[in-house]
Formats: sequence, C-alpha cells, structure tokens
Amino acid sequence: MTSYTTRCLAAASILVVVLALVLKCLEPTTTTQFYRLIVWNCFVAFLGFSLTVYGIPRTKHKFPPCLQGRDQGRKGTPQENTPVPEGVGIVSGAMFLVCLILCQLFYAYHNNSKGTERLMEYDAALLTICFGLLLGFCDDVLDIPHKYKFFIPTIAALPLLVSYRGVTDIVIPKPLRFLIISAADDHELTFVGDLLNHFAPIDMASSGAIVKLGLFYHFYMLLLSVFCTNAINIYAGINGLEAGQSVVIGLAIVVMNCLELTHENDPVVFTGNDEQHLMSLIIMVPFVATSLGLLCLNWWPARIFVGDTFTHFAGMTFAVAAILGHFSKTLLLLFVPQIFNFLYSLPQLMRIIKLPRHRLPTFDPKTGLMRASRLNDRKKITEDGEYNYHNLTLINLVLQIFGPMREDKLCIYLLILQVFCCGLGLMVRYGIAGYIY
Amino acid sequence: MTSYTTRCLAAASILVVVLALVLKCLEPTTTTQFYRLIVWNCFVAFLGFSLTVYGIPRTKHKFPPCLQGRDQGRKGTPQENTPVPEGVGIVSGAMFLVCLILCQLFYAYHNNSKGTERLMEYDAALLTICFGLLLGFCDDVLDIPHKYKFFIPTIAALPLLVSYRGVTDIVIPKPLRFLIISAADDHELTFVGDLLNHFAPIDMASSGAIVKLGLFYHFYMLLLSVFCTNAINIYAGINGLEAGQSVVIGLAIVVMNCLELTHENDPVVFTGNDEQHLMSLIIMVPFVATSLGLLCLNWWPARIFVGDTFTHFAGMTFAVAAILGHFSKTLLLLFVPQIFNFLYSLPQLMRIIKLPRHRLPTFDPKTGLMRASRLNDRKKITEDGEYNYHNLTLINLVLQIFGPMREDKLCIYLLILQVFCCGLGLMVRYGIAGYIY
Repeated sequence: MTSYTTRCLAAASILVVVLALVLKCLEPTTTTQFYRLIVWNCFVAFLGFSLTVYGIPRTKHKFPPCLQGRDQGRKGTPQENTPVPEGVGIVSGAMFLVCLILCQLFYAYHNNSKGTERLMEYDAALLTICFGLLLGFCDDVLDIPHKYKFFIPTIAALPLLVSYRGVTDIVIPKPLRFLIISAADDHELTFVGDLLNHFAPIDMASSGAIVKLGLFYHFYMLLLSVFCTNAINIYAGINGLEAGQSVVIGLAIVVMNCLELTHENDPVVFTGNDEQHLMSLIIMVPFVATSLGLLCLNWWPARIFVGDTFTHFAGMTFAVAAILGHFSKTLLLLFVPQIFNFLYSLPQLMRIIKLPRHRLPTFDPKTGLMRASRLNDRKKITEDGEYNYHNLTLINLVLQIFGPMREDKLCIYLLILQVFCCGLGLMVRYGIAGYIY
Repeated sequence: MTSYTTRCLAAASILVVVLALVLKCLEPTTTTQFYRLIVWNCFVAFLGFSLTVYGIPRTKHKFPPCLQGRDQGRKGTPQENTPVPEGVGIVSGAMFLVCLILCQLFYAYHNNSKGTERLMEYDAALLTICFGLLLGFCDDVLDIPHKYKFFIPTIAALPLLVSYRGVTDIVIPKPLRFLIISAADDHELTFVGDLLNHFAPIDMASSGAIVKLGLFYHFYMLLLSVFCTNAINIYAGINGLEAGQSVVIGLAIVVMNCLELTHENDPVVFTGNDEQHLMSLIIMVPFVATSLGLLCLNWWPARIFVGDTFTHFAGMTFAVAAILGHFSKTLLLLFVPQIFNFLYSLPQLMRIIKLPRHRLPTFDPKTGLMRASRLNDRKKITEDGEYNYHNLTLINLVLQIFGPMREDKLCIYLLILQVFCCGLGLMVRYGIAGYIY
C-alpha cells in the first residue's frame, strides 16, 4: 500500500514521459502553428492533472451523504462502513472540460480554410462531453432508470452528428468485395450488392470499394455513442478499473494519433488527414492526464469512487474523439475487452439469466482476496434447487481462470489484458489494414 | 390555493396564446424556410412544456435527502418539516436542452452563406447553457464556495466568446459624442477621445459614432455572463419568484425578437439583422415554455424548489441569447430589478454590513404573512446595542413599503414590478433609441 503522494509522483512521472514523447515525436513533422498548439495542449493537460490531484482531496469532504458509498470489496473488514465519496469523476470531468476550453482559445486562432468548421466541431465535441458529464452526475445523484440511459446519450450525440462535416463513406475490405461486385466480368453488382445499392449507393467508379452510407453512417455514430457510454459503465466495479482502462484506451488513441500525424504522406495505411487526428489528440491528452489524476485516489484501497459520472463522460469522450477523428472502426478494436464483456453479459442484461443488483466479485474477509461471484452471493435470488451460475462478467471470468486474488492484483491483470488488446488492435489496424484495403 | 392541474391548464393556455401570437406575428414577414423553423420550434417548446409538467411530479420522489429542503416561509406551521425537493430545475433544464437539440436538427438544414458560422454559434450556445446547468446542479449537490461561482461562469462563457462572430463595435449615443469628438472644427478628437483611442480605435469616418472595442467587448460579454448567472440567484428565495421573473424576462425578449424580425427593413431603430434575432427567438421560446412548466409546481405553496440549478442556467441562457442576438445592452434594460437588487445588496455582499446565511423575508406563523427580515431575525449576528438593519434586498424593500403580505401576493407584486420594468425597458429601447443614436 503506497501513500497518496507516492502514487501522485509516480503518475506525474508517467504523464511527463508521455507528454515528452508526444512532443518529441511530433516536433519534426508538424508546422510551427500546429506544434505550438500541441505544446500548449500538453501544458494545459499537466495543469489539469495537477489541479485534479490537488483538488480531489480538498473537495471530497463536500460530497453529501447521498454521494457516499460503501466499498463492496471491504465487506467484513473494519473498513466496511467507512463512507467513500462517490461520483468524484465530476472533479476530473470539470477539470477536463476546463482544459478543453483553454485549448480552444488557441485552436480558434489556428485559422485555415476550414477554421470555422473545425471550431464548430470542437464546440459540438465539448457540448457532447459536457452533456455526458451532466448525465453521469445526474445518474449518481438521482439514479436514472436504465431505459433512459440508452435514450439520453442518443440525444446528447445529436449536436455532434449535426455538426459532423466528415465523410460518411466506408471502404469495403478487399476480401469482402466479391460479395458486392463480381470480379470476373465488367464489374457488375452481385445480388447482395444490388440489394445494398438500394439503401446505400455503391461507388461504381471505385470498383465497389466505396459504399456511401450517408444517414446510415450517422445512425452508426449514434449507436457508437450509446455503446461507448454504457460499455465502460458495465465493465467496472473494482478499485481503479474504470479510470485505469480509460487511461489505457486513451493512451492507445494518443499513440494512434501520433502515428497518423507523423505519417500524413502515406495515405494507404494512414488516413492522411492530419487535422482530424490533431483534434482527437487535443481531446485525448488532457483526458488521459485528468483520468490519471483520478486514478491516483481511486487505486486500491480506493479513497474515492469515480461513479457513473466518470464512466459516462469517459465513454462519451472516446466516442467524440473517434467520430471527429474519423477512426470509429479502429476504436472498436481498442474496445475489445469492453465488447467481450458486453456480449458475455448479454444473457444477464437481457434477463435470460437472473440479474442481481451487483455483479462485482465477492470479497473474502478471511483471506483478503476476491473470488468470482455467484448469482446467490449477496441476496438469495434463485431457488435452492436451481443451478447457481457465476455472474457473467469479464472480471469474474478472469477470477475463475486465475483463481482468487487481491483487488489490486485483479485490477492489474485486467489492465494488462486491456494493454494487450489495445496493442493488438493497433497492430491489426496498421499492420494488416494495408493488405485488405 | 389552486390544484396542480388547474395551474398547469392555466399555464398551458398562456403558452398556447403566446405561441399563437408569435406564429401569427411572424407569418407575413419571414421566408417559408424561416417560418417552418419557427413552427417546429413552437411545437418543440410545447412538447417541452408538456414533458416538464408531466415529468416533475414523477421524478421529484427520486431526489435524495441532500436535495430535500425545508420551506423557510412555512416556519411555525404544520408543514414546517415537510421536505421539499430542491434543484428540480435540472428537470426543466434537461428538457430545455433536449428542445434546443431538436430545434438544431432543423436549423442545420437552414443553410445559407453563413450556415456553418450560425451552426457553430448554436453549438457554443448549447454548450454554455449546458455548462451553466451542470454548474448549478453541482452547486445544489456540492455547495460550491462563492468565490468559484464567479470564476466558473467565466470559463463556461469562453467557448461562446471564441465562437462569437458578431460585431465588437459600439455606437456612442449622440448626446455623448461631444465628449469624444469636437463638433465645432474639423472633427478632431477631444482629450477623452484621444485617451480612449489608445485603447479602442475610434472610427473617424463615422464622426466618432463608432468605437471599435475589440477585446474589451469580449471582456464585457464575459462580465455579462457572470452577472446574469449570479443576478437571478441573489434575487430569489420566495416561492415562484425565480421561475416567474425568468418567464417575464424571457417573454420580453420574445417580444423584442418579434419586433426586430417584423421590422428588418428599418435599420435606424431596429438592428436590421434578422438572423441573430431568429437564433435568440429559437432559444427563448423553449426556455419560456419549460420555465412556465416549472413555475406550475414552484408557485406558492411550492411543492418543489427550482434550486441554484435553475437560477444559474436561466441567467446563462439570457446572457447567451443576448450575446448571440447582439442585444446585450438592451438585456440590461430588462434586468433593472435584478441590477437594483444587486446594487442595493452590495453593502451586504461586500460585508460592510453583516451578511446572515439567509436574507429571505421572515414568515409570521400567527398571521400567515411575510414581513421584511432583519439581520438578527434568524440567528443573533450583531451585538444588542448595535443598530439592527433590515436585510438589503429588493424583496424586503417591497415588504417595507407595502407592509406584510402573503407569500404569493408578494411574488405577484414583484412580478408586476418585473413586467413594468421590462415594458419600460422595451419602450426606452425602441421609443427613445431612435433619437439618441
């Protein structure tokens, strides 16, 4: 168990290394104007981190009783009834928004032919993230029913879609093109292609490589926002996991943005559009910084909980960055653990198997370890005779495979899995994409 | 005491009349595209009103204990300890944001040469209002210290200023021009004019009529946002006053927008710029509708409190509408009671006279009437020998002048004052402005 100061210093060192790498890597390739913006962005991000680690210990006593939770992972220990402030993500979220607003001041002067469009997208991004934060905080305070949680992010994402000025075409991977267009004769549409053509026009000039999705693409982006907002929320519950996974995914996006920005002249593997990736980078760097600050206090043994506030706005931030950065398909490659957790949870989410109030792993006060939880663990919800399943979550699955372990070790295992999946995702995107597109 | 249903029906009738008048008055002068947008806007506003009056009674039991207040105006009655949900402005605020987002869908298709700029301003407006709502709700839940309440609206207004594409010049009233430019000889600058010219260039071609304020104008807009956000917040505390004054000011702005939109060919008295006033109208109509819905439940005897949530986002909404509608000076004419209340409160706000926790009027349970409160009314805060002042608020002043009265009568008096001031403000703007500009 490390002290808060040690953790903060460790996090600050990691952050400084990351920021230095970003600055080092982007210096040779970008214009002076771009580079100044990135320097300012990194500075603001570090400021946001500092204010977060400074601010949270000084505001957490302000949280009212309705925002004080009990740590389910300390049941049976003397700390069982220690109230832990919930929804502290509001502090890092507010800092993050302030960082974004400060960066916008510079971004506004970064004029070019499409300056107004970019600024509009920036405003829409801020709005969507702010709405996500508001939704999350309301959820923590007022406990919004589940049905609205799918409805509200849809509304919140609408301004972003209205302001979206990017392409709405997708490129069909080469191995799948035969489904749409016959390779043999003079590029005629197949039956599937013909059917598809009724809904989304296929660009015949590109030999069926490009399908103009139009409104369907907007619909896909809406779904992405709803998915991201909820995906992190259901892959949560142990100290440090929510903020940890967000930091890992955020870093993966930063790496991707840097790759794209340094390879802008290679439009085969890379999208060759630097402005989108610049915007995504500007959003992601302060996000990683403030989430890292939050993680310092949320790491086991947690003195604060991030709450739905954090999971909602973090998910929305990823969706926004992916939509404005035009890498919404790549984002799904970084979300593999979340997607797996969602699919694996489906039988419970769809109530085919009973869904208890909490599906967290069960803490064993004798050994101090976490073990996979079963449906009946907390409250009897199935008949005695009935088969008592494990709760269907990725966290439980890891515990079933590796056996009981302490909460921080479990979190590290899950974060390693996230790092592995994100690394693999980036390799797939940049290693294989060149062959199939 | 009327039932909730009666009040809702009365409010709905008022709203329908207002919407019908707006539609009737704008039909002959605007283009079909504009008019369709306004029809959609009115429809969405009515929907927002209906959802607010439907939603609040169904969500108010969800408010946790930290968001349950006691009505200070019922002290000594059996209802003294009945908890009243606080911060219910979040419901009407969320509905209002949803209305604005739905209107944006139409607005986005209303393309013209400046379509992107307008859409950007719309996004920035939504963002600023959303931030105001978030700030207000956080204040209700976490009780933000006063010093930050001046700082945070400043940050929230920055995206709006960055996205602001309007003029930053002001026109000097004719009777004051002699201060800047000498009328006698060949239009030379006076000493004051010369001094001013160092900071803000004076347009000599217009004979000193126009001063280019530039960044100073941005600074003024920032101050306006901070002022509006806090002005309504300190002119509050009796049932129905916060929502009531907002509805009155909102209606005055709607009237002004309609006047401007129907007189767009008369650029002497009117600004002659219809797009700005269209945007302000689109923001104000749903705001009036949702606030009217809130007022139904907040009217004496209040079953809900609007909370700082409402006062903050309402103030921010006015500031946003005024900035984007380019009538920030006229807005101050509509805010006369708030400005008077602020100036009158200054000795207490600046701690020259002691400031108790609450400055609400004191309720006398024997008579059931409110009377002007004194500094010592609730808790002894000054020495016995010292002179015990009345609290310096406009509400108390009205009670000192007209004597004790019931809370709803007091609210009606204050609202009549607001209507009178707003009417006078509009008359000054449109009656006298033609002579002095």
